Amino acid sequence: MRAEIIAVGSELLTPDNIDTNSLYLTHGLNEAGFEVRLKSIVGDDEADIAGILQTALQRSDLIIFSGGLGPTEDDLTRQAVAGALNRPLATNSHILEMMRQRFAARGFRMSPNNERQAQVIRDAEVLDNPLGTAPGMWIEERGRTIVLLPGPPRELKSIFEQKVVPRISRLGGEMKLAYRSFHVTGLTESELDSRLAPIYTAYPHIRTTILAGARHIAVRLYQWIDSSKPSLELEELAGKIQRELGDAVFATGGESMEEVVGRQLKESGRTLAVAESCTAGMLGMHITSVPGSSEYFMGGILCYSNQSKIDLCGVPAELLEKHGAVSAEAAECLARGVRAALHSSIGLSITGIAGPGGATPEKPVGLVYIGISIGEKTESRSRVMPGDRETIRERSTYLALSWLRRKLMEDRSRKPE
Amino acid sequence: MRAEIIAVGSELLTPDNIDTNSLYLTHGLNEAGFEVRLKSIVGDDEADIAGILQTALQRSDLIIFSGGLGPTEDDLTRQAVAGALNRPLATNSHILEMMRQRFAARGFRMSPNNERQAQVIRDAEVLDNPLGTAPGMWIEERGRTIVLLPGPPRELKSIFEQKVVPRISRLGGEMKLAYRSFHVTGLTESELDSRLAPIYTAYPHIRTTILAGARHIAVRLYQWIDSSKPSLELEELAGKIQRELGDAVFATGGESMEEVVGRQLKESGRTLAVAESCTAGMLGMHITSVPGSSEYFMGGILCYSNQSKIDLCGVPAELLEKHGAVSAEAAECLARGVRAALHSSIGLSITGIAGPGGATPEKPVGLVYIGISIGEKTESRSRVMPGDRETIRERSTYLALSWLRRKLMEDRSRKPE
Repeated sequence: MRAEIIAVGSELLTPDNIDTNSLYLTHGLNEAGFEVRLKSIVGDDEADIAGILQTALQRSDLIIFSGGLGPTEDDLTRQAVAGALNRPLATNSHILEMMRQRFAARGFRMSPNNERQAQVIRDAEVLDNPLGTAPGMWIEERGRTIVLLPGPPRELKSIFEQKVVPRISRLGGEMKLAYRSFHVTGLTESELDSRLAPIYTAYPHIRTTILAGARHIAVRLYQWIDSSKPSLELEELAGKIQRELGDAVFATGGESMEEVVGRQLKESGRTLAVAESCTAGMLGMHITSVPGSSEYFMGGILCYSNQSKIDLCGVPAELLEKHGAVSAEAAECLARGVRAALHSSIGLSITGIAGPGGATPEKPVGLVYIGISIGEKTESRSRVMPGDRETIRERSTYLALSWLRRKLMEDRSRKPE
Repeated sequence: MRAEIIAVGSELLTPDNIDTNSLYLTHGLNEAGFEVRLKSIVGDDEADIAGILQTALQRSDLIIFSGGLGPTEDDLTRQAVAGALNRPLATNSHILEMMRQRFAARGFRMSPNNERQAQVIRDAEVLDNPLGTAPGMWIEERGRTIVLLPGPPRELKSIFEQKVVPRISRLGGEMKLAYRSFHVTGLTESELDSRLAPIYTAYPHIRTTILAGARHIAVRLYQWIDSSKPSLELEELAGKIQRELGDAVFATGGESMEEVVGRQLKESGRTLAVAESCTAGMLGMHITSVPGSSEYFMGGILCYSNQSKIDLCGVPAELLEKHGAVSAEAAECLARGVRAALHSSIGLSITGIAGPGGATPEKPVGLVYIGISIGEKTESRSRVMPGDRETIRERSTYLALSWLRRKLMEDRSRKPE
């Protein structure tokens, strides 16, 4: 089954805003067996919205709109879809009453503008919105399904999960898209491809994609299958890929590296502290994006200046003079120092040259050292990262997490259970 | 003039990847007087790419493709566009030679796959790519212009800036879109609208949009103007809005808050250190995203645990016991403490409850205290932020920067020049 997503809103056509609802929707649609074939972003223009819908109806089984259901005159999705389908809009008194109650409960009077949100396209099924005023709609048209969802992410997710997923899972009885994904670390894209190509080329009915991002490489397998039975072929290929890559696979369910490391830390009962120079907080921020990270994350030091490396992480001034702040010696000293300062069982450090300034003939932009102090040992690694300032900082953060994951795995396999 | 952007690549239709090239392109197109009317994201499917182009030709003056120009069989933009325009593709021997030299210079032999990248659509103008192998193309068709650009951002930006901008600026002689933007802080969306509506409603030919993001509110003015003369009306409205909002406007050229604060710090000769609890690095990361921030950013402390607040920021244990780690007292003590520990002239702190856990009956999720220590004074502010964990952290980071900006302005107006 083929789906397409249409995001409505002129703000999504400015240089500052991007449609991110579609990432969430794509995940949910893939899970339900739909391939997302196309995404469009269209402004608050009735003719443009209607035009896109006309084209979409010719090629996709399921069309999901997000946005344009608000109370203002700019919110034109309802009207445009009604027009394109040649169906009237009518005020639904039940929705109107619910909206009035909602406003009254918060001590407001509903403005006449909001009444627009109670308009329903003829023969559409209303999808209640417990978190906002604009309800969603489910419309069937010439064998296609059109779903209208409000733009605010919280409302969109709530309606999609509770009202749309159960309904689309029932659609079809046709071919569905099944997929598996592997998030891989520690290999380059071409190393990965040369190891996997001999395996996946033997499965011509499965589409295999390998895509490198700043944070990891994703391997994805897609196959159109008969929805009534599982694909043995897909399971077989997934198993072979998992065996070939082993530990290089850190997630198969879309988990982030910081979640994986967080789980490892929790399971091992260890605590972590970080010393960040060039990343200056990016590592700490990622680690603490995981709820509950206070169980294992003690804190850290942003040692951006040399003086702070000396004062707060105990790096000797002579060491910095002799080897420089971007060196294996400094990285190791920082890892040890922050571990001691925060009383944690592991210290992790990053020091590097993110650019655009700061390079020397011996030390190019992108040179980064990672230090880890764990158990009796403190080690470091270096790499020269490609890319601009933000990319270098992202890759450094990711490399630090990735190496920590590896260390925690080794550590675990050494210890008796 | 109306533009649309078509991003090509099946990876952009997965749950992990988003098209960000279009943000850059939109900015450049707006600057050149084009409205971006539509964006599409399409997979590596020849029929889909050709179909989108056919529709685009009916509604837009300028159509920009990004991606799908690589050397593999999945890269179908050239072929699809050639097919849709009914023009043949032919190998361009000059490009082929350049590519061979490029490979040779790096010590590689060119693989036969790469020859696809030397194929040019008949009557297309080749846009050389100094940073990669895939050249861009400039095609004119029935009064419309089609531009093909490679997907890698560095290559796309380089060709767009050097080859496309000069050419599109010459297009037309027709109506162009002029715009002004204001990034505003310290007001809510409805406060802002109630102050501005009496002003902008007097200008019916100018479209005014007000959009709140997690970081700031953007006010934008758009007007279609005769490209041969500046719009006095637009200048007039922009002037009135600037006067009404005064200091609440922190940028009119798209500058970020961290750039503004960085400039203020540089100009005042002051240095900054941060103590971050719930944001745990987000503030430091944003401040140091600005190249050259080492001139004024000394570093910081991620005081995620209570012990780290005591040990590294000098917060008395009794204070934490009496008032809690999320309190005005703790925020002020952290700001003073980190300022002293890093020997900086300003200390800025954030402590709060980002959730989902950690709330108490008195202290809800979203409660955040910001502390600033500058000159002789240390102060704090609190706010309850709406949203999920990441939104609360982002808003807190932004509020801290925004308050620092305000303090630096006051400070400056007090000091003799």
